[in-house]
Amino acid sequence: ERDKYENNDIAGVVTGLAWTSVGGDILFIESILSKGKGALNITGNLGKVMKESATIAMEYIKSNAERFGIDSGVFDKYNVHIHVPEGATPKDGPSAGVTMLTSLVSLFTQRKVKKSLAMTGEITLRGKVLPVGGIKEKILAAKRARIKEIILCKDNEKDILEIKKEYLKGLKFHYVTDMHEVIDIAITGQKVKNAKKL
Amino acid sequence: ERDKYENNDIAGVVTGLAWTSVGGDILFIESILSKGKGALNITGNLGKVMKESATIAMEYIKSNAERFGIDSGVFDKYNVHIHVPEGATPKDGPSAGVTMLTSLVSLFTQRKVKKSLAMTGEITLRGKVLPVGGIKEKILAAKRARIKEIILCKDNEKDILEIKKEYLKGLKFHYVTDMHEVIDIAITGQKVKNAKKL
Amino acid sequence: ERDKYENNDIAGVVTGLAWTSVGGDILFIESILSKGKGALNITGNLGKVMKESATIAMEYIKSNAERFGIDSGVFDKYNVHIHVPEGATPKDGPSAGVTMLTSLVSLFTQRKVKKSLAMTGEITLRGKVLPVGGIKEKILAAKRARIKEIILCKDNEKDILEIKKEYLKGLKFHYVTDMHEVIDIAITGQKVKNAKKL
Amino acid sequence: ERDKYENNDIAGVVTGLAWTSVGGDILFIESILSKGKGALNITGNLGKVMKESATIAMEYIKSNAERFGIDSGVFDKYNVHIHVPEGATPKDGPSAGVTMLTSLVSLFTQRKVKKSLAMTGEITLRGKVLPVGGIKEKILAAKRARIKEIILCKDNEKDILEIKKEYLKGLKFHYVTDMHEVIDIAITGQKVKNAKKL
Amino acid sequence: ERDKYENNDIAGVVTGLAWTSVGGDILFIESILSKGKGALNITGNLGKVMKESATIAMEYIKSNAERFGIDSGVFDKYNVHIHVPEGATPKDGPSAGVTMLTSLVSLFTQRKVKKSLAMTGEITLRGKVLPVGGIKEKILAAKRARIKEIILCKDNEKDILEIKKEYLKGLKFHYVTDMHEVIDIAITGQKVKNAKKL
Amino acid sequence: ERDKYENNDIAGVVTGLAWTSVGGDILFIESILSKGKGALNITGNLGKVMKESATIAMEYIKSNAERFGIDSGVFDKYNVHIHVPEGATPKDGPSAGVTMLTSLVSLFTQRKVKKSLAMTGEITLRGKVLPVGGIKEKILAAKRARIKEIILCKDNEKDILEIKKEYLKGLKFHYVTDMHEVIDIAITGQKVKNAKKL
Ligand SMILES: [Ca+2]
Ligand SMILES: [Ca+2]
Ligand SMILES: [Ca+2]
Ligand SMILES: [Ca+2]
Ligand SMILES: [Ca+2]
Ligand SMILES: [Ca+2]
Ligand SMILES: [Ca+2]
Ligand SMILES: [Ca+2]
Ligand SMILES: [Ca+2]
Ligand SMILES: [Ca+2]
Ligand SMILES: [Ca+2]
Ligand SMILES: [Ca+2]
Repeated sequence: ERDKYENNDIAGVVTGLAWTSVGGDILFIESILSKGKGALNITGNLGKVMKESATIAMEYIKSNAERFGIDSGVFDKYNVHIHVPEGATPKDGPSAGVTMLTSLVSLFTQRKVKKSLAMTGEITLRGKVLPVGGIKEKILAAKRARIKEIILCKDNEKDILEIKKEYLKGLKFHYVTDMHEVIDIAITGQKVKNAKKL
Repeated sequence: ERDKYENNDIAGVVTGLAWTSVGGDILFIESILSKGKGALNITGNLGKVMKESATIAMEYIKSNAERFGIDSGVFDKYNVHIHVPEGATPKDGPSAGVTMLTSLVSLFTQRKVKKSLAMTGEITLRGKVLPVGGIKEKILAAKRARIKEIILCKDNEKDILEIKKEYLKGLKFHYVTDMHEVIDIAITGQKVKNAKKL
Repeated sequence: ERDKYENNDIAGVVTGLAWTSVGGDILFIESILSKGKGALNITGNLGKVMKESATIAMEYIKSNAERFGIDSGVFDKYNVHIHVPEGATPKDGPSAGVTMLTSLVSLFTQRKVKKSLAMTGEITLRGKVLPVGGIKEKILAAKRARIKEIILCKDNEKDILEIKKEYLKGLKFHYVTDMHEVIDIAITGQKVKNAKKL
Repeated sequence: ERDKYENNDIAGVVTGLAWTSVGGDILFIESILSKGKGALNITGNLGKVMKESATIAMEYIKSNAERFGIDSGVFDKYNVHIHVPEGATPKDGPSAGVTMLTSLVSLFTQRKVKKSLAMTGEITLRGKVLPVGGIKEKILAAKRARIKEIILCKDNEKDILEIKKEYLKGLKFHYVTDMHEVIDIAITGQKVKNAKKL
Repeated sequence: ERDKYENNDIAGVVTGLAWTSVGGDILFIESILSKGKGALNITGNLGKVMKESATIAMEYIKSNAERFGIDSGVFDKYNVHIHVPEGATPKDGPSAGVTMLTSLVSLFTQRKVKKSLAMTGEITLRGKVLPVGGIKEKILAAKRARIKEIILCKDNEKDILEIKKEYLKGLKFHYVTDMHEVIDIAITGQKVKNAKKL
Repeated sequence: ERDKYENNDIAGVVTGLAWTSVGGDILFIESILSKGKGALNITGNLGKVMKESATIAMEYIKSNAERFGIDSGVFDKYNVHIHVPEGATPKDGPSAGVTMLTSLVSLFTQRKVKKSLAMTGEITLRGKVLPVGGIKEKILAAKRARIKEIILCKDNEKDILEIKKEYLKGLKFHYVTDMHEVIDIAITGQKVKNAKKL
């Protein structure tokens, strides 16, 4: 049974696309803040590479805080916990990178993520978005989950071109090469309801 | 030999439902506070995913302390120890999430858990309750253990509908989608006897 | 070759009952204090579950210090080391829980443990004593070792009833459900010789 | 599908040469600074030896900060994160040593790396560059990726002499024995755009 | 090739008896102090149980410092390193306990160990010495190594009685049950040359 | 392809002798200081026993600082990094002990190591040098690498006597039993060029 897109009411919750042996699915990246000293907690039955994605996203944001409109003083005052639900399923690989990045930017800005949006792509410390695998399966899952817009790496455009047009109906694609484009597309100007004051 | 429901005299003790290769059973989640600096100790021969559930519950409560009526100043003054008895049995999986959440809210509020209640469900950082497996076996075990009310994820309602009516007699079901519903149902307004002053 | 009951001269030394592939035996739980900052050191070639029992005992005592007549200020001033002798033998399982609890209460109160007493039972954070296996073998070993009184979980009484009366001659059984009963039976009012002033 | 040389706009991004079971490729070493206390974070699905290269590069730079024009006061004020993209591919071995060294010197000086340059070689604490394997495959990959200049260990010159001249057209080789030569060749006098003030 | 007894010139060096698949041998336990904060470092290719022996010895001494004439203020001012030479040979088991205890008491008192003495026996936190295996092979090795006196657990006396008298010629045995007896026999009243002032 | 002796220009670089399945070779032990708090970093694809040698060398020097003319105040002000090059080759065993000791004494005194010297031998905390294996292969490799003098354990002299005289031509052997002899032979009175002021 597949997941459905939910909504964008909560800061730090972003919809990603996953690809497993049994096909594609959407997944949620969730992150929260609690008072602390800058610890990063990562859960969800994740393998080493997926945990590294969370670290990369966090360090990239710390190193580029200003550009994202984040006061770098906050990083030492909170612990961050990133979770990927459905703990019974082991998960790994770099493809949730853009989703984790978006989750953390939403969390630290307390801004809403764009509605009906999903994404998949590896991130790097130099700010690039890299292509990932399983695009066809991920796109089919996105449609089933009522996603309307998808962010992909520019290098994954060729994978979309191989998919029958009819399967793509109702989906809008954003092809990106840089992590800032992801944030420009995904993070809205609007604060979430009951936004935390950091 | 199966366990029996006990009572709700002690803060932090909550009845969950487990499903193993030899059938369903109830299990107890126990938690206690000792003076400390905010360490979280988890025992009971638990696998990685079940330990992650405890972390998720704890971080969720820290991040939403106000809503639960908890003064967030207490988190730094105590260590929390969560234990799942019957150390000879290895345990894993995300389904004790709601039970751990309830245990910790009872612990930090020193309020009684609702009587004759059991529960099962995965929790997430965004406050959702997710469905879990083994529902039929868990329900049979709950009856045997003299449970009267059960909290389940709304998505598990379909599993209940597949169970013969006669097996469900005397059981009241609460179907929830959000972690706050769990707490609203499970945590009473009454302090436990000899409640600690935190 | 089996061990013999020794005596009750030393605070923190308590006699437990063990059950291995080669039959039952008694074992000693030993604990000592050294000046420190509250570290808990556990040795004796122990598996994960048996180490967890030590943690549970320690946290339970910290959380219930007053009831045991222990000034909770001491926990930060000492390190505790718990050891189970005969390092060549790997040991695991939850059944030494009551023995570890008793050892630590004796240690922190510097009171004598009741003479010629042995015990076996799992402990839990909510203060319960749970039944354990290998009762027949353990009882035979206790007799051989000149034990006179044995503390067991109430739920293990049925295992005793299955043992031939003649094997039980000279043994007095205490069936308990709560950890406070263990301490009430096992810890005497008398300080050990050269009791440490904590 | 192989990677292409990108550019030298960003401090800390350096192009290395890798050799895997499926042939040669270029790889990027990326490093960034975030405010901190001198922690070194290493990601990219790396094995133990490749992580050690990062440590060696970092310690060598700390020990020779003056010669590289780095104020050694900065090391305690920042955390360094080194990443090697394409997390789906496990990577190991010492041959990225020179690339990591160059990445960190670029990072701490905020100077541009020479354009269209790639490199491969093991580094040591005494400042030597040691030869590595897979030279032929690496050179072919470098050409394909539009690299113009390559830094190699002097002891790898013999491997170049075994390659057909036509494959080497358009490539300029720098043979080095010491780590300072690497930096002299690779690090330009020009700061990157928006250079951080450390 | 077997080791020979050396001498007693250095504080912290004590001769033990070991038993491996290729027969008995003597071994040396060495320990030294360096300025520090009480860390315990253990090397020599040792298994978990043998490392635990070092911990037990250290904690026992800390808990009984006065009786051994040690000012307990020193424990926080030094790091202790215990080493068992011949790193190529993996070593494990509890039988070096008495040797480690003696090494540490010699180290902290800077007193000479009795000349031509070797020992073998498990130690426990309650101050007992327990019997160990391989006695015959150990005794033969001790003779070969020109040992004159041997400390054994009283319970190992029966193993000595099974050895042909002629093999025991020239050896004096000390059978002990308590760790204080070991120290009374093994530690002389004489300081080592150039004794450290602690 | 084998390594060649280099020179003695750099403090902390010492030539050792190694023996692998493909014959003997020389190896370099390198160490450097960076400002810090006394951490010891060990790299080079080393196994547990070889890492222990580094710890033993470091602790021995700390405990005997005065005799080596080292102000013990420096140990807390610097981190030490010890590296053994050629990261692609896993290395283990205790035979690099004397080489690591010499490396660290050279490092902390900033004195030159004797020219054209190599060494092999296990070290112990009581200051002894112990014999090691593979002597014949190591000697042949030393000659090939243009080594002129070799330090060995006195107990390895017998291995040299079994080697044909002609293979030993041009080699001078120093047989030692104590670690101080190693330092007396290996460390010259001359500071390295650009010696660090510690
Ligand atoms: Ca799903
Ligand atoms: Ca994704
Ligand atoms: Ca049960
Ligand atoms: Ca449950
Ligand atoms: Ca026994
Ligand atoms: Ca027991
Ligand atoms: Ca690639
Ligand atoms: Ca490279
Ligand atoms: Ca030997
Ligand atoms: Ca021994
Ligand atoms: Ca070599
Ligand atoms: Ca060597």
